[in-house]
Amino acid sequence: MKTKQFIFVRHFVGEPKLEDFELVEEELPPLKDKEILCEALYLSVDPYMRPYSRDRQPGTTMIGSQVAKVIESKHSDYPVGELLVGYFGWRLHTIKNPDVQATGMFDAIFKLPNLGGLSPSVGLGAVGMPGNTAYFGFLEICQPKPGETVVVNGAAGAVGSLVGQIAKIKGCKVIGYAGSDDKIKWLQELGFDHAFNYKKVNIRKSLKEAAPNGVDCYFDNVGGLFSSEVLNHMNTFGRVSVCGAISVYNDDPKNPTLVPAVQPAMVFKELKMEGFLVSRWVNRWQEGLKQMSQWIQEGKIKYEETETFGFENTPKAFIGMLRGENTGKAVVKV
Amino acid sequence: MKTKQFIFVRHFVGEPKLEDFELVEEELPPLKDKEILCEALYLSVDPYMRPYSRDRQPGTTMIGSQVAKVIESKHSDYPVGELLVGYFGWRLHTIKNPDVQATGMFDAIFKLPNLGGLSPSVGLGAVGMPGNTAYFGFLEICQPKPGETVVVNGAAGAVGSLVGQIAKIKGCKVIGYAGSDDKIKWLQELGFDHAFNYKKVNIRKSLKEAAPNGVDCYFDNVGGLFSSEVLNHMNTFGRVSVCGAISVYNDDPKNPTLVPAVQPAMVFKELKMEGFLVSRWVNRWQEGLKQMSQWIQEGKIKYEETETFGFENTPKAFIGMLRGENTGKAVVKV
Repeated sequence: MKTKQFIFVRHFVGEPKLEDFELVEEELPPLKDKEILCEALYLSVDPYMRPYSRDRQPGTTMIGSQVAKVIESKHSDYPVGELLVGYFGWRLHTIKNPDVQATGMFDAIFKLPNLGGLSPSVGLGAVGMPGNTAYFGFLEICQPKPGETVVVNGAAGAVGSLVGQIAKIKGCKVIGYAGSDDKIKWLQELGFDHAFNYKKVNIRKSLKEAAPNGVDCYFDNVGGLFSSEVLNHMNTFGRVSVCGAISVYNDDPKNPTLVPAVQPAMVFKELKMEGFLVSRWVNRWQEGLKQMSQWIQEGKIKYEETETFGFENTPKAFIGMLRGENTGKAVVKV
Repeated sequence: MKTKQFIFVRHFVGEPKLEDFELVEEELPPLKDKEILCEALYLSVDPYMRPYSRDRQPGTTMIGSQVAKVIESKHSDYPVGELLVGYFGWRLHTIKNPDVQATGMFDAIFKLPNLGGLSPSVGLGAVGMPGNTAYFGFLEICQPKPGETVVVNGAAGAVGSLVGQIAKIKGCKVIGYAGSDDKIKWLQELGFDHAFNYKKVNIRKSLKEAAPNGVDCYFDNVGGLFSSEVLNHMNTFGRVSVCGAISVYNDDPKNPTLVPAVQPAMVFKELKMEGFLVSRWVNRWQEGLKQMSQWIQEGKIKYEETETFGFENTPKAFIGMLRGENTGKAVVKV
């Protein structure tokens, strides 16, 4: 059968552009024994795709996960109709042999857990990789205690919005930063104690106002100058979980954004900062998904999705997500 | 009796200057019950004094530790002749009541342990605060494993030279950076696997050459641009112990040195970075001193001191230490 996929034709320079992508046709062979044919229902667009593309060859498929349905099967454990999350890249149809041992998270296939009536797209968000990123990346690295003050940026994004709500469940005071007044309104509805539009406020002043006793935990999606400000406002023995650095992903590596050095704050406040990739918790994957799913069923966690319609609009959705145009998880409905 | 002390007359701007200090006379009252009169033998000059002075009032005594001898005593546990390490500041004579509970490390008095014939000045260095800084700050935070590659900068300084030698004891490969060819020669004598003069080499190229398989542990005395380079050369799950940031201590806080953001390296290499003050291990103080002292007696750790003679030259010794003119521990012999 014929299908389609997006390749990237050159390494991105600065912000990715529509012409950096090309939609190409592909001929898929017939299935062999144990193979399954998957059809994309939802594609995920995530910040990590920008830096990760740097190590990949132009002309290859853009990386990424999708929720796919098995539409033809020669494997009895994966019948037609089964819903999967797979890192197939930006492709409409994919042939896989699920028995071939995955070499890492980006090669693995997960069966979608019971979502109790939620849209399967949540498997790319709150009950998927971003959900586990928030769950493990915040709880394991920040080790928040009740009563502590937590700062999260990218707070209206797929991960940040979940981190803030998990912090509330854990009894923390939560300060979120996002990039539009609509997002701020949404964060307030989610129960954030303070929410600021970082494009409109002075970060230092807003921190002094919202965290007069300092910041204990900082979940960082943004990096760069924003982080230098937060570090200077942290309490002794504060913990910093570095999940991403979206503010500098579009930088030219040879000409990076320059910011004040973090080391003085690290020393004098005795801070602990740890970067992570969620793949380190791949062995606890189901634990995270189960907890996130339960909190959603109990109404303790709310999530939002920004849907872009049509596979051909995936590059547009990706570029918009990097610009912060999404609220909650950015997905493409095929 | 009359004695002398150094006050700092203004907050330092950039590099401290001789005229920022003033030697003033002081009249000490007679001893009360339980008090002791201590006379300085050796004063310590350390990098931390530069940033710490920022929070203190001009016109007050410069902070710092010293090895002092009890020359008059009204306390039976502290007879005349006893040698102490105390954070008395840059003073020739000090009256203390050792029974008054210390409010922190900077207020505490330690009796000098048995040094087995070593100069008492070692109580300010390898068997003192810098020794414990190296011992705990490296081992506890970097958790080095045999065969791992360790980078240390300020490597010919009081702390760095000990860290490199401890790393060798633990079976690591050690790469040191210091600022003169004489220091590099000394580091080679100490058994460092590689030693570079950071003023003469390209940091990135030297790391590629000396650590072709990447860096696992980084003990950072310097911060700033140097650290950004090392972070980019670290292995996944590398550990960074941030002890100091001497490269930026003389910065104007309103106009700091700008460097590339650390967050991308932190995330994609899943690094852990922790700043510390050695005071957090005050309850294990004797353990560290004992181990350092033992390693010295066994010939496994060598140390050097750069002595400046005369109390009146303390500011000069301090300024020279900040410039990196010392090899090993910088002390003033009164």
